[in-house]
Amino acid sequence: MFSAADHEFMARALRLAARGLASTTPNPRVGCVIVRDGRVVGEGWHERAGQPHAEVFALAAAGEAARGAEVYVTLEPCAHYGRTPPCAEALRAAGVGRVVVALDDPDPRVAGRGIALLRAAGIRVETGLLADEARELNIGFISRLTRARPWVRLKMAGSLDGRTALADGRSQWITGAAARADGQRWRARACAILSASGTVLADDPQLSARADDGSLLPRQPLKVIVDSQLRTPTHARLLASGQILFACAEREPSRSAALEARAAEVLVVPGVAGKVDLAALLAELARRGVNEVHVEAGQGLAGALMSAGLVDEFLFYLAPCLLGTTAQGMFALPPLGDLTQRPLLKIRDVRQVGDDLRIVARSA
Amino acid sequence: MFSAADHEFMARALRLAARGLASTTPNPRVGCVIVRDGRVVGEGWHERAGQPHAEVFALAAAGEAARGAEVYVTLEPCAHYGRTPPCAEALRAAGVGRVVVALDDPDPRVAGRGIALLRAAGIRVETGLLADEARELNIGFISRLTRARPWVRLKMAGSLDGRTALADGRSQWITGAAARADGQRWRARACAILSASGTVLADDPQLSARADDGSLLPRQPLKVIVDSQLRTPTHARLLASGQILFACAEREPSRSAALEARAAEVLVVPGVAGKVDLAALLAELARRGVNEVHVEAGQGLAGALMSAGLVDEFLFYLAPCLLGTTAQGMFALPPLGDLTQRPLLKIRDVRQVGDDLRIVARSA
Repeated sequence: MFSAADHEFMARALRLAARGLASTTPNPRVGCVIVRDGRVVGEGWHERAGQPHAEVFALAAAGEAARGAEVYVTLEPCAHYGRTPPCAEALRAAGVGRVVVALDDPDPRVAGRGIALLRAAGIRVETGLLADEARELNIGFISRLTRARPWVRLKMAGSLDGRTALADGRSQWITGAAARADGQRWRARACAILSASGTVLADDPQLSARADDGSLLPRQPLKVIVDSQLRTPTHARLLASGQILFACAEREPSRSAALEARAAEVLVVPGVAGKVDLAALLAELARRGVNEVHVEAGQGLAGALMSAGLVDEFLFYLAPCLLGTTAQGMFALPPLGDLTQRPLLKIRDVRQVGDDLRIVARSA
Repeated sequence: MFSAADHEFMARALRLAARGLASTTPNPRVGCVIVRDGRVVGEGWHERAGQPHAEVFALAAAGEAARGAEVYVTLEPCAHYGRTPPCAEALRAAGVGRVVVALDDPDPRVAGRGIALLRAAGIRVETGLLADEARELNIGFISRLTRARPWVRLKMAGSLDGRTALADGRSQWITGAAARADGQRWRARACAILSASGTVLADDPQLSARADDGSLLPRQPLKVIVDSQLRTPTHARLLASGQILFACAEREPSRSAALEARAAEVLVVPGVAGKVDLAALLAELARRGVNEVHVEAGQGLAGALMSAGLVDEFLFYLAPCLLGTTAQGMFALPPLGDLTQRPLLKIRDVRQVGDDLRIVARSA
């Protein structure tokens, strides 16, 4: 059904879309390639919310050449008036001849209406080319729209024997520079970085997203700290910059005020036993347009998220060393009654990053 | 220096040598290919101690064609009268024209004398072709001859979070069938399987080497159990067959006698604090011709071997699941004073085996 050329142009559109990996939030990453007589006459990608969609850039670049042309777009063109006019309408007005779509838009406001608008205008529309790749590119956006919660990716760095820190919390550095730089690239694509007060107290991290050269990226993910009792001190380094949200179980007035004075937001999300309701917190993040959450925390929050069934993806960095049984573990889970009850994962990717091993897995 | 054809024939000799992986102990695995005018005229490999060496089989197959031929052999031909006459002498007598040797013999009884004998007879000898591969093939034999201790390969199967069993010891099965079959192939090449009474009491393993179809292999590794207090019950399944050695810290007469009545040998190897001296035990195993030791034990023996610096290689099987911090860890090590003191490994190979991940690493 699709030709080799179709695959090539859609792959190109996907690569363009990926340029928006760290910037489009809360919008999806989308790329578009316009082809006339086998030649690319226009291309574009969505760069950030409020700016034009990929199709608009590509149509502008193609100009008159768009008439009768073939359009490859990684996500169904929008049919609604949002911050920009509908792209399906723009494609129709440009008189394009054929539109190839990788993935139907999961947004219920669009949901096939973009495709229907094009078809009603007599334009040939084909869908599903490289759909898996397109879905992966926007896995968080899709999660938010279809499950009303973000895609939760949990990073865990430790030794081959599954230990993340010495008993006293020291963990800098178990993994090498290459793994840490790789971890930064996953931070950069996230809409929010989720951590816990325990990690803040132990490591005092900045939780900012940095380029390979160490400089701050222009867009910083929202910092979200699970801090039931609001133990984070006002001199914590993460408070120095960016948007910060503390999730606590109970509003303690003076500590809330102190954090708010540092320009942080304090959200009360009470759960059981004086803990934060993590599912409710994630739902709130989704409401705020958070597509992908990047978790960097210790065994407490990691275990609590696991136990609540809220981890979608795991990013393990295993360093070639051993720390032994006195060192800290990865996931504080309640004891299993039986081995059959163990949470199962599915390994998706394994590679060496520097001297360390990186394993990407998903909940099975 | 070496041609593409040289590489090809030596690779063939190495593949032949590997046929003896599970049977040559305490001898090395050796393969030999004889080539005349670019054509293989004879080949052979050493199959088991007491039987002819690889060169003898290859010369017999080549017959008269060996005269002036090129000989590829993975280990320096022997020059001493052992259970068989010296191979270097046999090659000389056959009138071969050129001998290519992958690796010098680490046996001090040979140590270059085979090569010298050949050269003295006017035969062109070249060495070092695919030497690394030849060394790997006999890493245990080399360890025994050069370090007076076996090569110790420690197998550890667990979850991605580094847990090997539930808190109560249940561990069957965390890894899948493919990983367990793969583990059996590593058992099969070992001269001895080393375990501990804790594992015997928890799992009652047979510690035998099996083929993929589950049948017992013809040669069974020596079973060695570290059992300081001789706690192993006489009904333990591992006592049902094979050669068995218990290493204890103190000879307790009645328990020793009970195990000896089951055809096991009891060896007293006292160390500190009522424990077995593991280094002394390994030295004794080397004296008995053990080249490769395959360790399957829990965090106690694994940690003790690590702490004593006695583990050469690690075979991790990581199953895509999580067991949490209440489950058992991999290595009971004393707490580290500092992260810089952590034992460093070097990852050599990573692959998926069934749904599990297998990591081969070595002490760095």
